[in-house]
Amino acid sequence: MKKIIIIALALSSIITFSQNDEEVIKTIYKQSLTNGKSYDWLNHLSNQIGSRLSGSLGAEKAVAYTKVELEKLGLDKVWLQPVMVPRWIRGAKEFAFIETSPGKTTNVNICALGGSVATPALGLKASVVEVQNFEELEKLGKENIEGKIVFYNRPMQADLILTFEAYGGCVNQRYQGAIEAAKYGAVGVIVRSMNLRLDDLPHTGSMTYDDLPVEKRIPSAAISTNDAELLSAMLKLDNSTKFYFKQSCKQLKDVQSYNVIGQITGSEFPNEYMVVGGHLDSWDLGDGSHDDGAGVVQSMDVLRLLKESGIKPKRSIRVVLFMNEENGLRGGNKYAEVAKQKNENHVFALESDSGGFTPRGFSFDCNDASFEQVLNWKPLFKPYLIHYFEKGGSGADVGPLKTESNVLAGLRPDSQRYFDHHHASNDTFDAVNKRELELGAATMTALVYLFDKYGINPINSPNNIKK
Amino acid sequence: MKKIIIIALALSSIITFSQNDEEVIKTIYKQSLTNGKSYDWLNHLSNQIGSRLSGSLGAEKAVAYTKVELEKLGLDKVWLQPVMVPRWIRGAKEFAFIETSPGKTTNVNICALGGSVATPALGLKASVVEVQNFEELEKLGKENIEGKIVFYNRPMQADLILTFEAYGGCVNQRYQGAIEAAKYGAVGVIVRSMNLRLDDLPHTGSMTYDDLPVEKRIPSAAISTNDAELLSAMLKLDNSTKFYFKQSCKQLKDVQSYNVIGQITGSEFPNEYMVVGGHLDSWDLGDGSHDDGAGVVQSMDVLRLLKESGIKPKRSIRVVLFMNEENGLRGGNKYAEVAKQKNENHVFALESDSGGFTPRGFSFDCNDASFEQVLNWKPLFKPYLIHYFEKGGSGADVGPLKTESNVLAGLRPDSQRYFDHHHASNDTFDAVNKRELELGAATMTALVYLFDKYGINPINSPNNIKK
Repeated sequence: MKKIIIIALALSSIITFSQNDEEVIKTIYKQSLTNGKSYDWLNHLSNQIGSRLSGSLGAEKAVAYTKVELEKLGLDKVWLQPVMVPRWIRGAKEFAFIETSPGKTTNVNICALGGSVATPALGLKASVVEVQNFEELEKLGKENIEGKIVFYNRPMQADLILTFEAYGGCVNQRYQGAIEAAKYGAVGVIVRSMNLRLDDLPHTGSMTYDDLPVEKRIPSAAISTNDAELLSAMLKLDNSTKFYFKQSCKQLKDVQSYNVIGQITGSEFPNEYMVVGGHLDSWDLGDGSHDDGAGVVQSMDVLRLLKESGIKPKRSIRVVLFMNEENGLRGGNKYAEVAKQKNENHVFALESDSGGFTPRGFSFDCNDASFEQVLNWKPLFKPYLIHYFEKGGSGADVGPLKTESNVLAGLRPDSQRYFDHHHASNDTFDAVNKRELELGAATMTALVYLFDKYGINPINSPNNIKK
Repeated sequence: MKKIIIIALALSSIITFSQNDEEVIKTIYKQSLTNGKSYDWLNHLSNQIGSRLSGSLGAEKAVAYTKVELEKLGLDKVWLQPVMVPRWIRGAKEFAFIETSPGKTTNVNICALGGSVATPALGLKASVVEVQNFEELEKLGKENIEGKIVFYNRPMQADLILTFEAYGGCVNQRYQGAIEAAKYGAVGVIVRSMNLRLDDLPHTGSMTYDDLPVEKRIPSAAISTNDAELLSAMLKLDNSTKFYFKQSCKQLKDVQSYNVIGQITGSEFPNEYMVVGGHLDSWDLGDGSHDDGAGVVQSMDVLRLLKESGIKPKRSIRVVLFMNEENGLRGGNKYAEVAKQKNENHVFALESDSGGFTPRGFSFDCNDASFEQVLNWKPLFKPYLIHYFEKGGSGADVGPLKTESNVLAGLRPDSQRYFDHHHASNDTFDAVNKRELELGAATMTALVYLFDKYGINPINSPNNIKK
């Protein structure tokens, strides 16, 4: 019996939060759910501005709008951080068909991949070779591929519970498909959309040519999952089936754009910076409500919710709305570069870039001591059904801020519906639920509050026990 | 150090599952996500049959369809259990307006509550008294209420994380609003829809007159949340504002219907019954995809998934598709009544009736020993992000099966979007995500598998440790 008591006491002394924290976090959630701003901001970004591809008018408007909105919050500082971004434009809507015999064609839904070159003006028609991966390409070799269109058709793995893992297992087809196929003389690339559902929507996304000479670059497009199934079936019936597609996208010169930054300056440790952010740019097919309008407005609301909940941060809290995550990461890299130049100590950075769905928790990129610290806070989140605290990645934009001692984190919302919308024309405002969005903003704010209050790695510091 | 090891050993001996269970559960989830039937069944129920209000042609078709589908599964027994159900019909679409001055009207969206009487054929127009609760009614008294329409406008509480709690805190306005208002001579009742969003859709649901004489029954309707806000604002500007509504619903005679039941007979303990179910009836405005088409098809798939995963149950597993949960619970009561007559020992019953969204866990109505048993299985569910294991209610249909020793449970999906659709015209197939539905079916199957394998309350039985 005595032993049990001793152990119970030993365990309880590890708990590094106070009853007051429970109250503060309750206030944060209540503020977000009854007095949140994120949904109104998202409505404007999605329905008044719309898509925000880097270098587009939409992106420019989003910079101006979010700067003005941050200025209204009475932060200590709001500014634009200049960054040059690539500008790729889609041009006229793409067109494609499957030709089973001369004149017998079936139209299918495609979209150019971001960064792809155009087809010849009259389009491109060729035989098709279907593969699941790059190993198959290599086996087939130049003799079976030259002059043909390579069709990558490896589906996302449905039995993975975390859909981002299924995405990670497929996305090399989209990102590197063209450069791999070009090695064997392919004339074009068609990639099955990164979508777990069967539907008619093509999903765009970035692709690379690395340093392939311009004349060797081949056009690359995504095809809807339904049409990928159709094309595959047609090829099985008759492997002389041809595919035609036409796209007129092009890469223009880099243009000036901006990260949008707002700051509450810390009262005790103003030189310790904590970042919360999402990316302001989006793809051009939908209005980017989930990717990443949600992360943008949630991050903005973190600073507002801190203020509304009466929290005066000890450390400097910044909201950073990064430009150009989708096709270049120029904003994320620029922010980290400037932070390094200025010798700013970034102790914590949290990104929301996994959709505006019900939050489940966080993924942490940090050392063991910091992770232990976070795990001790887990009970504070239980009333809000936040349960996922795992080591893993954070977010593309905050990634460049990584040091050995700091903590990077990513919000992890429910991911089941995310790839139904990701980079497609149905990534729109109506697919975002107000409460789910607000729960995400509150969950982020609660974590920022705790890291601000207790600092990073204080687990062994007696000052931070039961304070 | 020694102490820690002793305690660690003591803790590990409590773990009442084996490595094989991990494998079996993995198979169940994989089957559901790659080879599930629930979504196809729901497509038919929702899009080929549609709404299934008790006594309607849709309900009759759903009985016939699900019986045939269960028969295809090669279960040991499939049958219909007769039950008489109430039949209420909505009649012509309702019509309503706010009249701020003679001839100056604004149309609003209402729907009759299930069980309500009609208005007079030409409709009903009266002044309005807005209240938040029954206490306000009592304070206002007959002198302020007689001859008027009572408008219940207490909104669902937005800062409750479990939206069913917010529903529970409001639904007495809908269920008992008419009978309470009638006490003070009100001529009609308008209730703010049970919806956390602001939108234009009225949400129906059951209401009662208890034993109020027929001539004293007053018509009762739900108004959309947007229109509730509008009516409230109009009343604040001018409390002589009138409300008009017209509805032609009526209660017909009871009709014959059925619970649909399928069974896999247990190999070792055939007289121990385990039930998994949902309700086949729905409201009439949408197609009842979430409420409770989802629960029906998930429950059907539990038995199929057990078979497909190579599990031969020791106990008899029944899927029960209950009739008339929405406006009578006749099916649930009948099933329990017959079970009692036949002296069937129902050791476990699980209901899915909270929507087809991503499953988060279960709520358990059971004794402490059984709950402890369940908590020990929690780690098995972690890979599937199932984390919510709490004591609480189960489901309306399985409730009547309660004994002191058995376990009743309810699947608990993410609830944030549920009341956007509940009992409204947008409870439709497109609002259900295939993966979310399938994850729910797998989660239910995994729990049924564990209870079947280990029985109820075996925690102190050495036979069930590490088997």
